[in-house]
Amino acid sequence: MASIFSKIIAGIIPAYKIAEDADFLAFLDINPLAKGHTLVIPKMEVDKAFDLPKDVLAKWLVFAQPIAHAIEPEFPCNRCGISVVGLEVPHAHMHLIPLQDIGSMNFSRPKLTLSSEEFLEVQTKLLGALERSK
Amino acid sequence: MASIFSKIIAGIIPAYKIAEDADFLAFLDINPLAKGHTLVIPKMEVDKAFDLPKDVLAKWLVFAQPIAHAIEPEFPCNRCGISVVGLEVPHAHMHLIPLQDIGSMNFSRPKLTLSSEEFLEVQTKLLGALERSK
Repeated sequence: MASIFSKIIAGIIPAYKIAEDADFLAFLDINPLAKGHTLVIPKMEVDKAFDLPKDVLAKWLVFAQPIAHAIEPEFPCNRCGISVVGLEVPHAHMHLIPLQDIGSMNFSRPKLTLSSEEFLEVQTKLLGALERSK
Repeated sequence: MASIFSKIIAGIIPAYKIAEDADFLAFLDINPLAKGHTLVIPKMEVDKAFDLPKDVLAKWLVFAQPIAHAIEPEFPCNRCGISVVGLEVPHAHMHLIPLQDIGSMNFSRPKLTLSSEEFLEVQTKLLGALERSK
């Protein structure tokens, strides 16, 4: 069965998309730890990140770089952190999270509940920052 | 002033090394969250991970892949996770951590205190697994 992320890639499940190319899709995490929290996923459906082929691994952080650079000035943070956990959805995914302190990447803490207006506001900020960086 | 990690690269400060090439060094985290917790650092001293040049970013996960594959069977875990935080040492570094549950990457929890014998045992296991994978 296709993962929830493959369904987002196929457009069956909606998402607040941030960036896309032939190999990757970035969209807002629907259960964010902070405003700006973005998921970057390979379109190839592989459970464990390190089981991705080398050519996909090689492009992943390069694809994520401009998104991280868009997050950093738009949301309160020291920098954008990276986390790949993958215990919940069996489709490799990279979290990009604005970090304020060492607790910012603790996935055990309560997630934010954002309204659709708030998600749209976050998406608009990131798309604007990405457009300006071109 | 050179970062503590640049001093490890230069051999001024000792470390339990796991792998090295022209661009990267991997060694055991001295304050591990779990046995097998390894740091993978670019030799280039850059504070923020996403400020690394694209060619270094492209090689980072590819260099880390065999190390993660060595960690996974050697230490109790569901898989090897990735975390890049970087609030403490101003030299980009990637944590590879054996994950058992969602709390395994919570950097706020107490670190393990390992003896030098235990660090050597972890290092020996990883070097053996890497050698066998060649």
